Amino acid sequence: MQETRLDTARIRAARQAIDPVFLDTPLYRCEALEPGLGCAVSVKLETANPVRSFKGRGTELVASLLAGDGRNAVVCASAGNLGQALAWSGRARGLDVTVVASRSAPAAKLERIRAFGARLELVDGDFDLARERAAALARQEGIRLVEDSLDIETCEGAATIGLELADAAPTFDAVLIALGGGAMATGVGHVLKELAPGVEVICVQPLGAPAMTFSWRRRRVVTTDSTDTIADGVAGRRPIPAVLDDLLVVADDAVLVREESIIAGMRLLLEHAGLVAEPSAALGIAAILEDRDRFAGRHVVTIVCGGNVDLDAYHRWIGAAPAHRS
Amino acid sequence: MQETRLDTARIRAARQAIDPVFLDTPLYRCEALEPGLGCAVSVKLETANPVRSFKGRGTELVASLLAGDGRNAVVCASAGNLGQALAWSGRARGLDVTVVASRSAPAAKLERIRAFGARLELVDGDFDLARERAAALARQEGIRLVEDSLDIETCEGAATIGLELADAAPTFDAVLIALGGGAMATGVGHVLKELAPGVEVICVQPLGAPAMTFSWRRRRVVTTDSTDTIADGVAGRRPIPAVLDDLLVVADDAVLVREESIIAGMRLLLEHAGLVAEPSAALGIAAILEDRDRFAGRHVVTIVCGGNVDLDAYHRWIGAAPAHRS
Repeated sequence: MQETRLDTARIRAARQAIDPVFLDTPLYRCEALEPGLGCAVSVKLETANPVRSFKGRGTELVASLLAGDGRNAVVCASAGNLGQALAWSGRARGLDVTVVASRSAPAAKLERIRAFGARLELVDGDFDLARERAAALARQEGIRLVEDSLDIETCEGAATIGLELADAAPTFDAVLIALGGGAMATGVGHVLKELAPGVEVICVQPLGAPAMTFSWRRRRVVTTDSTDTIADGVAGRRPIPAVLDDLLVVADDAVLVREESIIAGMRLLLEHAGLVAEPSAALGIAAILEDRDRFAGRHVVTIVCGGNVDLDAYHRWIGAAPAHRS
Repeated sequence: MQETRLDTARIRAARQAIDPVFLDTPLYRCEALEPGLGCAVSVKLETANPVRSFKGRGTELVASLLAGDGRNAVVCASAGNLGQALAWSGRARGLDVTVVASRSAPAAKLERIRAFGARLELVDGDFDLARERAAALARQEGIRLVEDSLDIETCEGAATIGLELADAAPTFDAVLIALGGGAMATGVGHVLKELAPGVEVICVQPLGAPAMTFSWRRRRVVTTDSTDTIADGVAGRRPIPAVLDDLLVVADDAVLVREESIIAGMRLLLEHAGLVAEPSAALGIAAILEDRDRFAGRHVVTIVCGGNVDLDAYHRWIGAAPAHRS
C-alpha cells in the first residue's frame, strides 16, 4: 500500500492510551435489517459509551498526550461530537477544554459539552467558521488547537475501529464509513487496506455536503459555499489537503446519498435494530438503499458512529410525532 | 456464602461455550441520566447483539451442550426473548427448535423467533400456560425441554454478566436486576455475592407481576392468578421453588415498581441515553425513580437486559405517536 500519514504500529499502541470504555465495541449481524436491504449487514456500534459517538477514541489519545506533555488547556472546533468527547477526555485528565461550535448544532450535543465541564463558545455560522474561531482562540491564548482529521491522533484514534474490524474481516466484503472531515474514513481505511486489503472501503457523504467526495473524485481539494443536510456531524465545506491525500490512498469509493435515504436509514435502524442513530450514523444504510444491486448477496459492515440527536427532530424524521405526555 | 445451585468455576468455563458476540457487553456511566435520578448510574447494555437481549448467553450454553450430546431437537416456552435466543443458538448448531409462546407476546419477538427458523406454537394464554404446553410437547415428542431459570444453564449463562460486572465492582455500590423467573437475578447475584460481596443485589419486579418478589419476602412460593404489566418479559405467576431457594441466598432485596415508573424509565433511557429498552429493561431505572433517597449519592448499575419492542406500543409509552409516513 502507498504510504499515508498513519502508522498501524502506532495505532496498535494507541489502544493503550484509550479508556477501554471506548474500545472493543459491539460488532454483530442484524438479520432483521436484511430483508429490507438485500444483503448481509453487520453493525459496528459506536454509541454505547459515555459520549455516544466514536470520537472518544481520538480524544483519549489527544488528551493523554497533552497531559503527558504537561499541557493544561486545549481548544477545538466541533460539530458537537468531538467537543463532547474532548470535554470528557480532558476532564478525566485535568485539562481546561474549550469547544467552539455552531449555534445551530443540536442542542443535545451542546448541552453535553457543557455538562462535561468544557467552556463552550458558539458562533453564528457553520462548522468551518467555528474552525476559524477555534484557531484564533488558540493563537490568542497560546493553547493547543485540536483539528479534527488533520491532527493525526484524531485519525489514529478512529483507526482503532479498523483494528477491531480487521479481526473479523474474513467474514465481510465491504465497510461503509461516514465521511466528513475524514478522520474515521482515513483511519479505518488505512488499517483495513493494510490488514484486510480484500475489504472494500466505501465512504458515504450526504449530497448536501459533498466537498470531500467531490475532492476525492477529482483528486484535488474542492470546496463548497454552503451545506444543506440534516447530517450535522459530517457537514464540512473545506476539505483538508493532507487528509484528502490519505483518503485517495485508502478509499475504494466515495458515494453521495440523498436526505430521504438518510432518514430511511435512521428509520430502519430504529425499527429493525432498535438503534437510535444520528443522521451521520445512518449514511451507510442510506448507501445500501440507494444501490441495492451493488451490495446484493454481499456482507457489509456499517459503522453506527454516533447517536446524539435532538429527540424532537429525530421523531419528526422517523415519523413518530412527540405526543402529549401523560 | 450459603450454597446455591450455581458454581462460579462452571460459570467461568461457560464463557467458552458462548459466542463472543454475547459477551463483554458495554458497561458505562450515563451521566446524562443522573440529574434526573440523583445518583451515579452505569448501564450494562445487553441489547447490542443479534437477538437484542441477554438470553443468548444462556441459550448458547444450552445449545452447545445439546449439540455435544448429539441431541437434535429442543423445545422451550418463552415470553419472546428466550425463544428468539434459542432459535438463534439452535440454528447455529443444527438443532430443530420449537418455541411455545403466548399469542399476546410482542409481535416483534414472535416474528424474530420465526425468522431464525424455529417452529413457533402459540397458545391462547399467558407465559405459564405456554410452560405447560411446552412440557407436554417435550413429553409427546421425546425432545429436550428447556426451562428458563430452572435449567442451570439458563442461570449460569446469565451469570456470565456477573463475571463482567465483578471486574468493575470496586466502582459501584449496587446492581439493579430485572426479576422474572429468576435466571438473571440468581445468576448475576450468585457471582457478585461470591466475588464482590460488598455490592448490593437488588431485584426489581413490576407490581403487576409480583409473584417472585412476594415469594422472596415470605420465603416460600407464592403464586398469583394473573399478571397485569407491560413488562412482558418478566410476567410470570408461578415461581420455581429451586430458583426461589437460590434467590433467597443471593438477593439483598426485591422491590416492586409501578407501571408509570417503568414507562418513565423507558423514556429516560431513550431521552438521555439514546437507548431503546423494553419495559423489563427499564425496571432498574423505575426502582431508582421510586426511591431516590435510597440511591442518593451512590453508584448504581442497571442491566438493560432487552430491547425487543413493538414500536407502536413503544411510541405510545414514551409519548411519541407514530405519524403519517412520507
